Amino acid sequence: MTTNRVARLIKRPQGMVKRDIFDIRDEPLPEPGEGEFRVKISHISLDPAMRGWMNDARSYVEPVKLGDVMRAFAVGHVEASRNPQFKEGDAVSGRFGVQQYAISDGKGVSRVDEGLAPLPTWLAGLGMPGLTAYFGLYEVAKAQAGETVVVSAASGAVGQVVGQLAKLKGCRAVGIAGGKEKCRMLIDDFGFDAAVDYKAGDLAGQLKAACPNGIDVDFENVGGEIFDTVLTQMNPFGRIAVCGLISSYNALELPPGPKNIRCVLTMRLRMQGFIIFDFTKRYSEAIAALSGWLKEGKLNFVTDVREGGIDAYPDVLNLLYTSGNRGKLVLKV
Amino acid sequence: MTTNRVARLIKRPQGMVKRDIFDIRDEPLPEPGEGEFRVKISHISLDPAMRGWMNDARSYVEPVKLGDVMRAFAVGHVEASRNPQFKEGDAVSGRFGVQQYAISDGKGVSRVDEGLAPLPTWLAGLGMPGLTAYFGLYEVAKAQAGETVVVSAASGAVGQVVGQLAKLKGCRAVGIAGGKEKCRMLIDDFGFDAAVDYKAGDLAGQLKAACPNGIDVDFENVGGEIFDTVLTQMNPFGRIAVCGLISSYNALELPPGPKNIRCVLTMRLRMQGFIIFDFTKRYSEAIAALSGWLKEGKLNFVTDVREGGIDAYPDVLNLLYTSGNRGKLVLKV
Repeated sequence: MTTNRVARLIKRPQGMVKRDIFDIRDEPLPEPGEGEFRVKISHISLDPAMRGWMNDARSYVEPVKLGDVMRAFAVGHVEASRNPQFKEGDAVSGRFGVQQYAISDGKGVSRVDEGLAPLPTWLAGLGMPGLTAYFGLYEVAKAQAGETVVVSAASGAVGQVVGQLAKLKGCRAVGIAGGKEKCRMLIDDFGFDAAVDYKAGDLAGQLKAACPNGIDVDFENVGGEIFDTVLTQMNPFGRIAVCGLISSYNALELPPGPKNIRCVLTMRLRMQGFIIFDFTKRYSEAIAALSGWLKEGKLNFVTDVREGGIDAYPDVLNLLYTSGNRGKLVLKV
Repeated sequence: MTTNRVARLIKRPQGMVKRDIFDIRDEPLPEPGEGEFRVKISHISLDPAMRGWMNDARSYVEPVKLGDVMRAFAVGHVEASRNPQFKEGDAVSGRFGVQQYAISDGKGVSRVDEGLAPLPTWLAGLGMPGLTAYFGLYEVAKAQAGETVVVSAASGAVGQVVGQLAKLKGCRAVGIAGGKEKCRMLIDDFGFDAAVDYKAGDLAGQLKAACPNGIDVDFENVGGEIFDTVLTQMNPFGRIAVCGLISSYNALELPPGPKNIRCVLTMRLRMQGFIIFDFTKRYSEAIAALSGWLKEGKLNFVTDVREGGIDAYPDVLNLLYTSGNRGKLVLKV
């Protein structure tokens, strides 16, 4: 190969992501400079947060600049190196962007062990989603044995890990997902105690049945009506770890906020937003724990790997916002 | 006196409190039994939370039962005692209800020092509102020197103390209140650094000017549009102590929630509800601190004492919900 297929962001999206906000084109294969190496990307992570990175708005990271390669976590192999710490053939993970090849100086790049798990898993349970579940549930929400943990988007990249980590902690794990197949996955693939199908109606009634002792921890990935319903069933001193609010990411104007916000007061809830980047210094602790449980057969990570390469990026990304994925969504390059 | 004027709750309110939800009548003067004493109530505390206590809804305390004397904190003097711990003439504070005389067994009753401050102050800065400000600002929000603290309903019972405690801690204190007179009080009477008049328009612009370095702590008493505007100016890792949401207490249906809730995620905010009753075991610590500062002339408590006795209770209470009070609202019996 002598070219690099890249997706550059050229417009700010309005509503759902459309193909024309990207310029997807061939560029010359980049060569590593002194201290750099080239990664041949094999898989790109598709994350709900990507939609936010495209907006020109105040947030926890700078927006992707117009003209830049779209920001993305990815995995691949080093194929040419002028950096002594990364050798040809090394499997690596990092923020390589939506493209076939990336040049890196090693900053923020981790070597990953293909012997422990295949590369896509390093974008899933052993990657950002796994770390997010780990710190969100254990550090932010401080879930305790015996408590009831509810997670929305429960079969997704983060949710599936949250449910399993809740079980490992001795909690009751209740997942909210859309449709029978996803709810089946929650029980059969991830060992949740109960599944709530938000597409089946009577969300409040289903949730009540699934959480007979109320809700102590809400790991919130969705927001909107689902969050508003969960709020009314939170126990006193419950914790809400706000990890994502995907229901509003493509809204053209801000949707109404949670009308049951008063429960935060009357039930003395702690609602706390977090971003995984704030835990950078503790990643290795979490990776060690997650890897250990994986080796012991205590964790199961389901990835949904899609074909189509760089050109498929906009369409595959949208699956996240239309509930079209089954587990952690990954694009094969 | 051989009768006791009492206000009994006989209907659940719809919207604003109306007179006909109370049966206000004379009852026989109650006599203390063994271990009990009678309090002649001098002043009754009017608190925003009263509106919530009237609803038949899940909350942090049981609703007032229909037929019961309306729940209220009050101060007065012991005038007949069969309890060795409380002597005739003792000045006391407790949950005595909206009535002229109360019988108590001493549970939850504190002796107060009229030498230090007049009785209404023991319902204000040295009572629940002062304790609420103390624990909310220092324990829940964990305000630190150098931070910017915003408080809504800032000239009210709790808000006025929050501003002064923020200054004592070395914070920048910014108050939000309605109208020029209240904003003048914030600066002149309580020493706030800046006042924002929510009735004067351009709330976001005023707030921005008052908080040039953003907001680290929001002590939230109001909710609604005011809270929604504050949310957009919170700094990363800011804390929101949710003390009250008075803007919604008389709503016939739940108003829209905060549409900027996404800031909780992007700015990693901690939003935490609290109720002063959860700090019961630490009241004495706070009273000692507040009394000490009062003696040193470092605190100023403004009370708004209204005449009219028990019969005036419904109308005087409504002043809280129409911004008609100037400082801590108290009903003289």
